[in-house]
Amino acid sequence: MAARLAPEPTADDVITVLRRLRLRAPLVQCLTNSVATNISANVLLALGAAPAMVDIPDEAGEFAPVADGVLVNPGTPGAEARAAMLEAAAGARLAGTPWVLDPVAVGALSVRTRLAHELLRHGPAVVRGNASEVLALAGGGAGGRGVDATDGVEDAIEVSQEFAREHSCVVAVSGPVDVLTDGTRTWRLANGHPWLTQMTGGGCALGAVMAACAGMHTDPLVAAASATAVYTVAAEVAAETAHGPGTFAVHLLDALAALTADDVRRLFRPLPAGAPG
Amino acid sequence: MAARLAPEPTADDVITVLRRLRLRAPLVQCLTNSVATNISANVLLALGAAPAMVDIPDEAGEFAPVADGVLVNPGTPGAEARAAMLEAAAGARLAGTPWVLDPVAVGALSVRTRLAHELLRHGPAVVRGNASEVLALAGGGAGGRGVDATDGVEDAIEVSQEFAREHSCVVAVSGPVDVLTDGTRTWRLANGHPWLTQMTGGGCALGAVMAACAGMHTDPLVAAASATAVYTVAAEVAAETAHGPGTFAVHLLDALAALTADDVRRLFRPLPAGAPG
Amino acid sequence: MAARLAPEPTADDVITVLRRLRLRAPLVQCLTNSVATNISANVLLALGAAPAMVDIPDEAGEFAPVADGVLVNPGTPGAEARAAMLEAAAGARLAGTPWVLDPVAVGALSVRTRLAHELLRHGPAVVRGNASEVLALAGGGAGGRGVDATDGVEDAIEVSQEFAREHSCVVAVSGPVDVLTDGTRTWRLANGHPWLTQMTGGGCALGAVMAACAGMHTDPLVAAASATAVYTVAAEVAAETAHGPGTFAVHLLDALAALTADDVRRLFRPLPAGAPG
Repeated sequence: MAARLAPEPTADDVITVLRRLRLRAPLVQCLTNSVATNISANVLLALGAAPAMVDIPDEAGEFAPVADGVLVNPGTPGAEARAAMLEAAAGARLAGTPWVLDPVAVGALSVRTRLAHELLRHGPAVVRGNASEVLALAGGGAGGRGVDATDGVEDAIEVSQEFAREHSCVVAVSGPVDVLTDGTRTWRLANGHPWLTQMTGGGCALGAVMAACAGMHTDPLVAAASATAVYTVAAEVAAETAHGPGTFAVHLLDALAALTADDVRRLFRPLPAGAPG
Repeated sequence: MAARLAPEPTADDVITVLRRLRLRAPLVQCLTNSVATNISANVLLALGAAPAMVDIPDEAGEFAPVADGVLVNPGTPGAEARAAMLEAAAGARLAGTPWVLDPVAVGALSVRTRLAHELLRHGPAVVRGNASEVLALAGGGAGGRGVDATDGVEDAIEVSQEFAREHSCVVAVSGPVDVLTDGTRTWRLANGHPWLTQMTGGGCALGAVMAACAGMHTDPLVAAASATAVYTVAAEVAAETAHGPGTFAVHLLDALAALTADDVRRLFRPLPAGAPG
Repeated sequence: MAARLAPEPTADDVITVLRRLRLRAPLVQCLTNSVATNISANVLLALGAAPAMVDIPDEAGEFAPVADGVLVNPGTPGAEARAAMLEAAAGARLAGTPWVLDPVAVGALSVRTRLAHELLRHGPAVVRGNASEVLALAGGGAGGRGVDATDGVEDAIEVSQEFAREHSCVVAVSGPVDVLTDGTRTWRLANGHPWLTQMTGGGCALGAVMAACAGMHTDPLVAAASATAVYTVAAEVAAETAHGPGTFAVHLLDALAALTADDVRRLFRPLPAGAPG
């Protein structure tokens, strides 16, 4: 708990988290939306984690304490899913299992907005979304256009920092440059590829990777930044041989499975603190 | 509304609709079945549209007026999905959002057959299905074998024309030759590839493309025919480099993303009026 | 019913089942989990079967008698899914439609464990799972770690044989070597590839193939062994050209569609009776 706070994200940290992930094969409970469930499970399997889509009432709560990380993504939040998500978040909190909240389209739609605020009480380790979702969750925005952000990442930084401090969590804002903050430190990572936004579940699967990595480092910001780096560096490797969003999604799985320390050293691109986004 | 009625489908119309789609990135609300949701979202993203799988009660009705087009596909119609579909269709009708009904396996199964007749009251802009589904919906057939048609496209033409006039909608019947009619004009399009039928959701995703294109032309028959053309021409491009149904589905996404006006001019194959199917 | 009992699995039997499958295009009703539904349908389509995801109450029971085979996989067993599964199993039993039970994560989670025991009363033709799931279903194990087996295949053989005799069914235990038994005969098949375990739904889709093949041979053990052989031989063909789990899943579909009698003759690898696993 009183871990060293890394002053900046390094390739070595990312490589350490990746190695631990492959060695420990964390069990990742995913309560996610119907569009993202397949690609999220495949991304986790490719990385060497063990996905478990345990997402119904009674089972969700009994599984969360066993899991190494939990993802809660209310993208298609039917009544049963909502009950299971609250159960899983509560169970995770009680057992000390780190869990990730991905507030898909919060702000734009009423049912999930209410749900997300209820979920927040159970103390997520990470909140991951686009700028509009994070602003809406923090009470500072009207939400995006469906799942698309209508706000820029840089516009969400100050609110994210406050939110991270208030909720003692990491806030990860996805965009052309990903911004991650724990309220004290704010890191910008510049990897990725536009095809990630043309592949359904591209953002949601990153939430699953964050749940897999959450227990792989004592510093939660390093864990979340490493998840982002692994995923977005693999995206760049995949894009080298892909011809469009279809082949890209397929090659991304191959790239995640084959990702090497050298790939990370060669491609990882954190921006200096204070750099423009 | 008093738009010019195109006398025949042209490549230029298809190209116009494709360009508008990419420029405007229409927000397409999909209430679809559990098998087709992933490929439908990916097809829309590849084309440059913005899919939003908003499919639960309360949210479905609040989102339909914001969407540019809505797809209702009761392929796996659980109770919550049924309520959401009726809400979305009602909301779309009130707001003037064009919506597409894909009556998957209607006629063969009881729950969805009742639902489809209720949905019809909300005035879909397009009804898209195979011959057996369209005949069953119109009251003239016993339905197919699960999702497979047991009737030929040509057998459904007269019934489709009547149905289109009665419901003031476009009826699109999929098959080796696709037939589209608004009751006055009847067009036959001969693009496509058998692998489309070996890829799950291959037909359902076309329904999503029709919802995306519905607002892209003032003439609804041109909009629906252009959706069909874009999708089936891309299928032919994809088939050129695919080795089976697996690579085909992946290359289809690449082809949709890269489709050019030249591809459409080179491959679009409408049949002359009255031609045999 | 009083069919010849094959003394050992042969390539010719596998080829016969594959040919019948492609000729008859069996209608396979799948009630499966949200992660596996897409790949299961695609696997069936690639093989030439006709998947139908009819999985809601009222429709599930009316469809099972029409189907040629039914898969019941309670991997994400919401309340509505549970009711539909019981309906489908009961309807299949009454109509004599063979059905396959895939007890995903049974033993590890409470709701599905109760459900699986209820389902068992409806007499599945095949029970297919990993060693931990089969042991838990038979009352001899504590279940695995989510969907992962923590027991070895060989540890489950004796229990599987007893279970098969007691329930008059085939038990198929997946692992590096697949073991299939009807209580009298016990066969070991050594085809497959580790990438099958890195592709979500890789095991679940085999359950769907077993449901497709169940009616293709009078000897249920030959039918189940042929399903396993077709699927795992295709996996080896796919692995020859794949570069990782992403391309593997795609090439698997191509390989299933293109699988030849020669592929089966060249690659099918049953182990002699009594051989170590």
